[in-house]
Formats: sequence, C-alpha cells, structure tokens
Amino acid sequence: MSINDLFNKPLKVINAGLLSFREDLDQLGVDAIQLQWKPPVDVDSKAIEKIASNRDRTDAANARALNIVLEGKPMLTGLDVAEKVIPRMRKNLILHSGPPIAWDRMCGPTRGAVIGALIYEGMAGTVEEAKKLASSGEVEFAPCHEHSAVGPMAGIVSASMPVFIVENEAHGNVAFCTLNEGLGKVLRYGAYAPEVIQRLKWMEEGLYPVLRSAVERLGKVDLKNIIAQALHMGDEVHNRNRAANSLFYRTVAPAVVETAPNKEAAVSVLDFINGNDHFFLNLSMPAAKCCLDAARNIPCSSLVLVMARNGTDFGVQLAGTGDKWFTGEALVPDALFFPGYTKADANPDIGDSSVTETVGLGGFAIAASPAIVQFVGGTAEDAFQYTMDMYEITAGENNVYQIPYLNFRGTPTGIDVRKVIEKNITPFIDTGVAHKNPGVGQVGAGVLSAPMEPFRKAFEGLARAMS
Amino acid sequence: MSINDLFNKPLKVINAGLLSFREDLDQLGVDAIQLQWKPPVDVDSKAIEKIASNRDRTDAANARALNIVLEGKPMLTGLDVAEKVIPRMRKNLILHSGPPIAWDRMCGPTRGAVIGALIYEGMAGTVEEAKKLASSGEVEFAPCHEHSAVGPMAGIVSASMPVFIVENEAHGNVAFCTLNEGLGKVLRYGAYAPEVIQRLKWMEEGLYPVLRSAVERLGKVDLKNIIAQALHMGDEVHNRNRAANSLFYRTVAPAVVETAPNKEAAVSVLDFINGNDHFFLNLSMPAAKCCLDAARNIPCSSLVLVMARNGTDFGVQLAGTGDKWFTGEALVPDALFFPGYTKADANPDIGDSSVTETVGLGGFAIAASPAIVQFVGGTAEDAFQYTMDMYEITAGENNVYQIPYLNFRGTPTGIDVRKVIEKNITPFIDTGVAHKNPGVGQVGAGVLSAPMEPFRKAFEGLARAMS
Repeated sequence: MSINDLFNKPLKVINAGLLSFREDLDQLGVDAIQLQWKPPVDVDSKAIEKIASNRDRTDAANARALNIVLEGKPMLTGLDVAEKVIPRMRKNLILHSGPPIAWDRMCGPTRGAVIGALIYEGMAGTVEEAKKLASSGEVEFAPCHEHSAVGPMAGIVSASMPVFIVENEAHGNVAFCTLNEGLGKVLRYGAYAPEVIQRLKWMEEGLYPVLRSAVERLGKVDLKNIIAQALHMGDEVHNRNRAANSLFYRTVAPAVVETAPNKEAAVSVLDFINGNDHFFLNLSMPAAKCCLDAARNIPCSSLVLVMARNGTDFGVQLAGTGDKWFTGEALVPDALFFPGYTKADANPDIGDSSVTETVGLGGFAIAASPAIVQFVGGTAEDAFQYTMDMYEITAGENNVYQIPYLNFRGTPTGIDVRKVIEKNITPFIDTGVAHKNPGVGQVGAGVLSAPMEPFRKAFEGLARAMS
Repeated sequence: MSINDLFNKPLKVINAGLLSFREDLDQLGVDAIQLQWKPPVDVDSKAIEKIASNRDRTDAANARALNIVLEGKPMLTGLDVAEKVIPRMRKNLILHSGPPIAWDRMCGPTRGAVIGALIYEGMAGTVEEAKKLASSGEVEFAPCHEHSAVGPMAGIVSASMPVFIVENEAHGNVAFCTLNEGLGKVLRYGAYAPEVIQRLKWMEEGLYPVLRSAVERLGKVDLKNIIAQALHMGDEVHNRNRAANSLFYRTVAPAVVETAPNKEAAVSVLDFINGNDHFFLNLSMPAAKCCLDAARNIPCSSLVLVMARNGTDFGVQLAGTGDKWFTGEALVPDALFFPGYTKADANPDIGDSSVTETVGLGGFAIAASPAIVQFVGGTAEDAFQYTMDMYEITAGENNVYQIPYLNFRGTPTGIDVRKVIEKNITPFIDTGVAHKNPGVGQVGAGVLSAPMEPFRKAFEGLARAMS
C-alpha cells in the first residue's frame, strides 16, 4: 500500500494517545477506538509546557551531560581515613545514605548504624548513651552524596573509618566509600553488636593498612576495566559482584603479598576479600559516583545524577537543578527473605547503592546477570525485559559497559526524567533488605521499581529552574 | 479445527522425511510437496539394522553411561611428576594428543613439541639430534588418552613434566594433565625455542613445588564447583577460562602464600596464574576426562567418551566399543588469525581439549560464552544456535553445568553417535589453531564442526560389537 492509498481510503484509527485526540476524530466522523493505556503521570501542566518548550536545549544539555558521564575514568588511587580526605568531614559529623534526614525521622537500620558508629568512635559507651547523644543535637548528620561519598544501605561514615579514594581521571574529581564489611550482622544493615564493632576495628587496624600499601604499590586500579569485564561475567556490580571481586582480588593479591608486614597479615586480608564478594560493591559505587558528579550543574539537563534512599525517603537530584533534592516515600522491595523473616520485617528501600543504576549498572544491566532475577523467582526473560524497559527511560547507551546476550549492546545509561514521566516507567533497582528495627541486620535481597513521586517533583523542579 | 475436521478435509502434505514416503502419497493422489533436507549419512545398511534392533538395549546402556558421567566428582588432589604417577610412563615414552600416530605421520606442531620435549628431557642437545632420535624407533609414542591423561594441542607429556592429579571421587579413577604454559611461543603449539624450554624448566622448578605444597595444604580443590560457577560467568572452560581461572586463583592464593618458601616465590606463582587465563584449561580437561573414563566398557552404549585430534587424524571412542579408536581426517578450523597469518598457515584441528565438548562443556556450552563467537565474527544468537544444535545429538542434559540465558537449562551432555548419524550433525568444537610447521606456535583461535568420518566408523564399529 502506498502512502497515497492510505489517504484515499476510509481511516480506521486506534488512538493510543490523549483522549482529547480521539474526541477530535469523533467530531470529524472518523471511525476510532480508544486503546487502554497507562495514563501519564499527573504533573503540573505548566511544568509540562515549560519542559516541552525547552526540548532542544534539554536535549543538547543531556547529550553533554551523558557524554561527561560516559567519559568518566574511575581509578582506585588509594585509601585513607575519612576525616583526612572527605571534604568537611569531622569528629561530630556522621554521613548517611540518601537525602538529608534528622534523627527523629531516621529508620531503624540507620539509627542502629548511627549507634554502632558512635560506639566505634568511642563517643558513646553504651547503646543508651549513643541514642542520647544522637538525639541531643551535638552530632550532626549529612548525606554522603553531599560530601563526594556514597554508602551502601545505612551508608554510615564516621571520622575514623577507612575509605577508598576513587578518582575520575577524565575530570579530576574524586569519590569516597567505606570498605565492605561482609554479610549478616553488619553496621550497614543497622547491626551494632560487639562483634560488629570488633570487625570494624579489625578493618581499621588489620585490613586498611595492608590494602593501602598494596594499592600504593600498584599506583592505581582501573575500576572501569574491571566493571566492563564483570558485565561479561554475569555481574551487574550491585547485587552480584562475584566476577568483579575475583578480578579485583587477582589484581591486588601479589601487591598484598609483597607489601604486607608478614604472611599472616597478607593471608587474613586475602581471606577477607575472598570471603565476601560484595567487597567490590564499595568500589563499584564510588566508581559510579565520581562519573556522575562530573556532570553536575548543566543548566536545563533532565539527566538524573543521584538516586539515593535513607530508608525513609527516596531522593533524586538532576544535572540541571544543582544540589536540590526531590524526595518521596521509600518503598519496601519485593525480596527473597532469609528463613524466619517476612516482608513485615522489612525496612523500606535504603542506601546509596542505586548510584550503580544511575550510571547504567545494577538493575539497568540485569540482563547481564539473570542469576539475580532467578534468586527472587524470575526467569532469564524477566531479566531481559527489565533491562529493555530501562532503554525506554535513558538518554543513551553505555560505550563501555555491555550486555553479552543483547549481542554486546551498551547498557541503558543516563536516566532522563522527562522519559520517566512521559512513559510512566520508574527506574528498576536491585537491593538488599534490612530489618526495620535497629540492631538486627540483613533479612533478604530483592528488586523494586523506584517510586514516581521524587521524579515528578524533579520534573517540576527542572521546569521551575528553567529561565 | 478439531481432529475430526482434519480427516474430513483434503490433505496438503509437506513431506520432510524419506522421498519414498512422498511417493506413497503420490500414488494415493494426495497433494504433497517435498521439503529439501540434509540426507542422512551414508552408513552401511546392515549396521543401521543392527543398531535399530538393539535400540532399547542401547538406550538403557546410554542412560547408565550418562548417569556415571553426570555423577562424576572431579577433585584436584595433588601434583606430581609424570613418570611417578602416570600409568606405564617411562623415560623413553612420549604421550601425545589424539589417536595413535607414528613419527612419520605426525603433523608439524606435534613434531615440534616432540623435539622440544626431547631437548627439555636432556635426551637431545639440538633440534637435529631430537629429530634423529624421534624417528629412530628408540622413542615410543602413545596417546595421552590411553594413559589416563589429556593434553591440549600437541598434548606432549614427557617423563619429567609435572602434572595435575585429578580424582573422580564418585568412582575412584584419576586423570592427569600437564600445567598450562601460557600463550604465544609454547610447546603445546609446536614451539621449541630456548625460551620455551626455559619456561618448562621454571614450571618444573619454580611453579610446580609451590603449587604442589599449596594443593597439599588445601587437601583438594572442587573443580566441578568451579566449572559450574564459571558457566554462570561467561566461560565455557575450553576457549574461555577467565572466570574459572579467577575462582581457582582465589582458592589457591592464600595457601600459596602460606606454603611458598618465600614472598618472591609466592608472587611469581601468583603472577604466572594471573597472567594466563588458560591455566585452568589444564584443569577443566582432566576434570572432564576422569568423569568420562568412569563410563568405559558399557556394552551396547553409543555414548562418545573420547573425541581427540593429533593434528592429522580425528579419533573417537565409544562407551560400547572398549579401547578401539575410530578415526578420520582432521579438518582446519574457521578461525581468527593473528596478524600476519592466514588459513593457509593453519594446521588441522589438534588436541585432546575436545574432551570438554565430550562432557558437555566447550562448544556444547557456548551459549554461556557468546564472547567466543563474537571473537570469530558471530553473534550471541549464533552461540545460542550452536548449543541448541548440540541438544539434537546428546543423550541428556547436564545436572550441574547450566546456561544462564537458556534459563539455567543444563548443557547438552553425552554425545549419542546414533543421533550424530541420524541427524547428520557433528559435534561443535572450540579450538586454538597451531601453525602447520614445527617451531612456530599459535596463529589463531576458532571453532569447527567435527568431521563425520570417525562417527560413521564408530557407528559401524558399535554395530559389529553388538552380539
């Protein structure tokens, strides 16, 4: 049928757009039926107009922002103590995951981790003392994200904790993250028992100096290279890090052996990294963070640079809206729960680890890692579909991070808040699940779609920021 | 349409089987067209009758054989020197890959590797002396496969070489394999330059004692577990071993550090394993071999237990035909050649590494490892298709080795020579490519389908063996 034939025949129209368009057709006497479809998100109409009228400017700004993100070259260049390297870090400041939050609104696991950190720092002797101090106003709280840092789950960083220093060689900015403690009863899931504090002390005194010397010996470790390979090896470097951790281990092991004070110190560090594949998560996160931070403050850009949860609120920041947070209620993930626990025990979604999704990894790359979906009862096809959905809301495809089973297609990268609103699809996120009460720890792992609220607010905030 | 409707209407038939069936339809006046299809292999008709009349016995024998193969538990239990552990190994015996072959019919790379081995053993001082000795009749040659061993490419094993000892814990039998030398100019590709001999000496004096002590410390290393994980991480453990080698490295590194005589010895061993991902190939091969050997001598079984090439002949052994070899001409693989080389430089297919395909890995599991197909210009879909084709000729599916992107379906395992003949599909094999001349080394890597000839002969041999 040629294009002319189309116009010479009676039209039969299936209208999948706004109902008002169908009404026009009805008035013209054209035979039309209305397709049932997901309505767009209920957004302020002035914001829609403003964003629409700036389409070309935003497209250009997003292209620039995405290019900066994709150009990022995250390198592990060293380790140091938080207080010495994190900007404006100090003894009475505790960093946490997600958007800003005060003690009185903090969820159980975050409170638990704050309690643990105050005991670890020697600022409190007991849990009761720690609670009192935390609520006294003498301790300040701030988001990791506002201090060039990221933290998984509760994301607590205190002054004495050792941190990885990850430098974005393409832009010169850095990001920080603590060292991963392992699974089970750990601070980041809100546990603060003596064993938790003891492990943190060993990490400070046993793990940190050895690993610091090893990285010093190596000069730097190319994290982008490791992550790219890991995606070819079944990881999405959020909930699955087995390949990335293996490659990291192989890279640092000889330097650990060479620089450790003795055989026992070397073996204990190697055993610790070998015993916990999530060790690499605390490297994939700052690797993502430093690439995203380089694209901050690009006027009109609708690219999402931060998605982070404090266990109460889910917060979003855009390239085009500076340091402003847009927040909404954090949801409880669908999860596989450890024996003895149910969804009723679960805290809402928590942690800065969604920084991996923000850079095109994690849930966005889950087609590279179907084992994660299988874990919560899904199939390999489900994993494909989740990734395919994310192409719908991203500005482009990754130039380095690829999915073998999509014939090495680049992962969906650079969330465009306009597409989130227009298509009514929110980012898909892999996550761990913390018990909602302080002091318990991890109760499961799972997946979820982000809430729409913060993206709606970000969309409207971007419109307001447009001159 | 109900089944009754089918018989009340005129039939339109597409005949995809034997032409004689269409001729019957023609006589009945039924409208039929003939589908073009691959004709079955030209096999002796008496053999076909014999095999057909024993179908149930063969099915039962294959079920038993496959079960033995799948039950196999390959464990690395130690290292030793070939002469001390390989049955009937002695100073003047050299083992090679593939079916039996005399010096005068050996291909270039096998001759090159024999020359290198004689120099390495101190039995010859020069290349000329080695050639003279090799052709004198004073040196005996035998297939690795006949000595519970396997060798990649030329597969040369001489008396002083250190070997891995892999025990099948389910059945008590063992298999042996030398240690992988790395890439480039190496003995297994037919190179024998001084650097090649020097590396073999270091492997004997530097690598072997350290690794032996480390494995002694560990007791044993579960190879089946590592291989199963590696398939979830993009390996097929024939041409790609990056994940398996990483997991092996993590397993042995602390023991290497603990047992090595000093830091330098430990680091040199770790660097060597880290520098060559094919290091694990020489473990995946004996792991496969010891599982397959346990299923030998099961009367009437048409299961293939050996596929091996000596660079001249491609040889096959069946569970139902004892130690008899069935051979045919080895083919030249489709390959990606290193710069400066073409297919004209390539030696025909060589090595025992097709033992991996025989146990359901390598080319049979290539859907788990699409990067290999991409390497030779194919797509992820091609990789799927190769594996799907192998389900057509196998007796079952693996119970442990799985393919994530087939929703964790078990790999096609246990080649049934009846299906190979009936469907005219030969096994798909990943392989390295050696230069056809001695002394050169590797020139590429690629894939190929096995020749039909040895399978046709094996089919006829099985018929003869049936009482």
